[in-house]
Amino acid sequence: METVQIGMLGLGTVGSGVLQMIQNNEDKVANVTGRQLNVKKVLVKHPERHQKVQGGIELTTDIQEIINDQEIQIVVELIGGIHPAKEYIEMALRSRKNVVTANKDLIATYGPELSRLAHDNDCDLMYEASVAGGIPILRTINNSFSADKITEVKGIVNGTTNYILTQMSQQGWSYEKALREAQKLGFAEADPTNDVTGKDAAFKMVILSQFAFGIQLTINDFNVTGIDRLSAFDVQQAGKFGYVIKLVGISRVINDGVFVEVAPVLVPVDHPLATINNEYNAVMVTGQAVGDTLFYGRGAGGLPTANSVLSDITSVTKNLVLKTNGNFFNNYQQRYIPATTDQVAYPYFLSITMPDITGQMLKLTQIMTEINASFSQITQTEANGIARIVIITHAMSGSQLHEFKAQIASEPTINLDAAYKVLK
Amino acid sequence: METVQIGMLGLGTVGSGVLQMIQNNEDKVANVTGRQLNVKKVLVKHPERHQKVQGGIELTTDIQEIINDQEIQIVVELIGGIHPAKEYIEMALRSRKNVVTANKDLIATYGPELSRLAHDNDCDLMYEASVAGGIPILRTINNSFSADKITEVKGIVNGTTNYILTQMSQQGWSYEKALREAQKLGFAEADPTNDVTGKDAAFKMVILSQFAFGIQLTINDFNVTGIDRLSAFDVQQAGKFGYVIKLVGISRVINDGVFVEVAPVLVPVDHPLATINNEYNAVMVTGQAVGDTLFYGRGAGGLPTANSVLSDITSVTKNLVLKTNGNFFNNYQQRYIPATTDQVAYPYFLSITMPDITGQMLKLTQIMTEINASFSQITQTEANGIARIVIITHAMSGSQLHEFKAQIASEPTINLDAAYKVLK
Repeated sequence: METVQIGMLGLGTVGSGVLQMIQNNEDKVANVTGRQLNVKKVLVKHPERHQKVQGGIELTTDIQEIINDQEIQIVVELIGGIHPAKEYIEMALRSRKNVVTANKDLIATYGPELSRLAHDNDCDLMYEASVAGGIPILRTINNSFSADKITEVKGIVNGTTNYILTQMSQQGWSYEKALREAQKLGFAEADPTNDVTGKDAAFKMVILSQFAFGIQLTINDFNVTGIDRLSAFDVQQAGKFGYVIKLVGISRVINDGVFVEVAPVLVPVDHPLATINNEYNAVMVTGQAVGDTLFYGRGAGGLPTANSVLSDITSVTKNLVLKTNGNFFNNYQQRYIPATTDQVAYPYFLSITMPDITGQMLKLTQIMTEINASFSQITQTEANGIARIVIITHAMSGSQLHEFKAQIASEPTINLDAAYKVLK
Repeated sequence: METVQIGMLGLGTVGSGVLQMIQNNEDKVANVTGRQLNVKKVLVKHPERHQKVQGGIELTTDIQEIINDQEIQIVVELIGGIHPAKEYIEMALRSRKNVVTANKDLIATYGPELSRLAHDNDCDLMYEASVAGGIPILRTINNSFSADKITEVKGIVNGTTNYILTQMSQQGWSYEKALREAQKLGFAEADPTNDVTGKDAAFKMVILSQFAFGIQLTINDFNVTGIDRLSAFDVQQAGKFGYVIKLVGISRVINDGVFVEVAPVLVPVDHPLATINNEYNAVMVTGQAVGDTLFYGRGAGGLPTANSVLSDITSVTKNLVLKTNGNFFNNYQQRYIPATTDQVAYPYFLSITMPDITGQMLKLTQIMTEINASFSQITQTEANGIARIVIITHAMSGSQLHEFKAQIASEPTINLDAAYKVLK
């Protein structure tokens, strides 16, 4: 049986998982693809730290050792970050090597450019592992919704924040305490900024939107709100109303446009996304014909992510056998038209504080009436002369919310502490 | 742009859905595959009943009109049943036409034989729609778990029984009443035998086991128990213990063997499968590397099933463009070794009736002790001098359960009314 030689860049958690899976599942891969897989060389910074690597794998600190190796047909990029990952991938593609990467930042930023370069060199560029680790969502959207009109893709695509939110909701912890615990257990990094500000989820929504709607976005094209300002009080209040707060990425067709956002939203407890807890991820794809579908699994971790990398490697290998490399991983292309604020209507959870004095509630209801919006549920609690009002509204457009915020801002005694969308 | 001509056999709910999707999503399909799709001819029994069909589609009652049409490259079989569907598909393959089918009975029974015939004629034979309608599970197992060792695939793969069980659990209805309501609403057929006896789910487990483990089974190779003897009392008791009863198909690696079964089982309320209600289906795939994943969607219905048919049609079309037809839809092959009864251990829910007289409970506990099994939870209720005992045991092997049943059978006053596995 012929062997497909692989060059790998980086040997961290995912890279070690890839090696382990190739060794453990050699027979199955051979059974399915008709080829043996062999990792021939790995680019590492510190070879002395990887003395345990077995199977005759050559460690190198020089990228050219891999690029110039004529035997290597697949380069697997697992070093992360934009530079030098981008340059290494470009060199590999120009040397007519197929590329598999798990690098969401890079793909969300330079995906179309790199895909074009791959195509021009008759090479594959695949990146299933860049979104939701163990959930095979990109290939599924590609292959299984190709004749349906997807109307929405939304999901919990960041495990760190989902772990924090699950603890806040189930243990009643503050954001700060939940973050510290997550860091202790290794579910959050020492610098959690990219996760908790929603940036990581935003990169994934860029890629999901490419696959679902064929559109090219950057993370600057839409609103991204993290969980770092979420209060324990609001999490509790949401719970009392029958909701859990989740960091949800939404990409949704509205009329001819697409609305994209990453933000904390209230999810009803009987909604499929409400049951996704801790480090798990889930992506819900709604198609005009197929209705609601949901894909659930681990969003991160060495082996789950390695599984997605391996699914790309076996796809590339099948293409090598069939001599069909060079097709776009995602070949659906549409122009992006953002939905206008007017068109985006959701119920909102509004958390408000004001002095507990006569006439305040009247002001609030007057503002709501003026902007033609209305309450669905409301509770008021009081502490130290401050009233805390929590409201679930009926559906309001983005413009109505904007107007509401402006009016509240002009009332010196009323503070809008939080406004979150409510899913149905 | 070139057009791919399609011949369709049957024009019921799914067939109409396929026509509708091809017409509605023409541009997207063309964008993705580089081809137009056109349904040229449809085989129907009563052309006069389909006067509304548009777009210049030719209706015919003669299969030869389709088989002998040199322009037709894909035959879509949607008439169901074994005969004459099998013969029509064979004729199509021998005429070098690719075949897409939604026929689970046929594929579960003659899949390997037909796949071989397709391969020998350089044609595709795809059948994504044969399992769990709108859930793209077969292609996902194929493409996304190709380098992982799947350890278990289990799921709720029959919408009719799941609808009935949801109503029994949520409304407290008897099986008979829930069935009648399901028939009224169109969720159960006039003759529901195939659904309620578990046969339909068993066909799907045969196909899922092929994809997950590469093994060839028939529905006679494993135990299939339906829901038609499930009592409202047991559903309620399960609820009190924190479980819902679901008809679950299980296919699970145990040591070197595979354990396969379709039966009502108790699912803990916080288990992902417990939240799958009414006509929805879900398939949970557990991989050694990837861990638990779950795929959820509508299990039946014209448009969801049509979406899976279309995903096959676009796959075949991509292969036509690349000239790569003729590969097996599932090319993973392993020998089937059934797990032995000894190896299969689950906790059990046991529902027992006996006269409410002294010494009965002692007998029961003696039997349990004798077979080296033990109780985890137990309740006793009494009505008209009859005691109803419901037990959740600790894990017992199949052999222990067998011995328990034999001992109970020899006690004339103790009746074992039901024994269901309990999932963790």
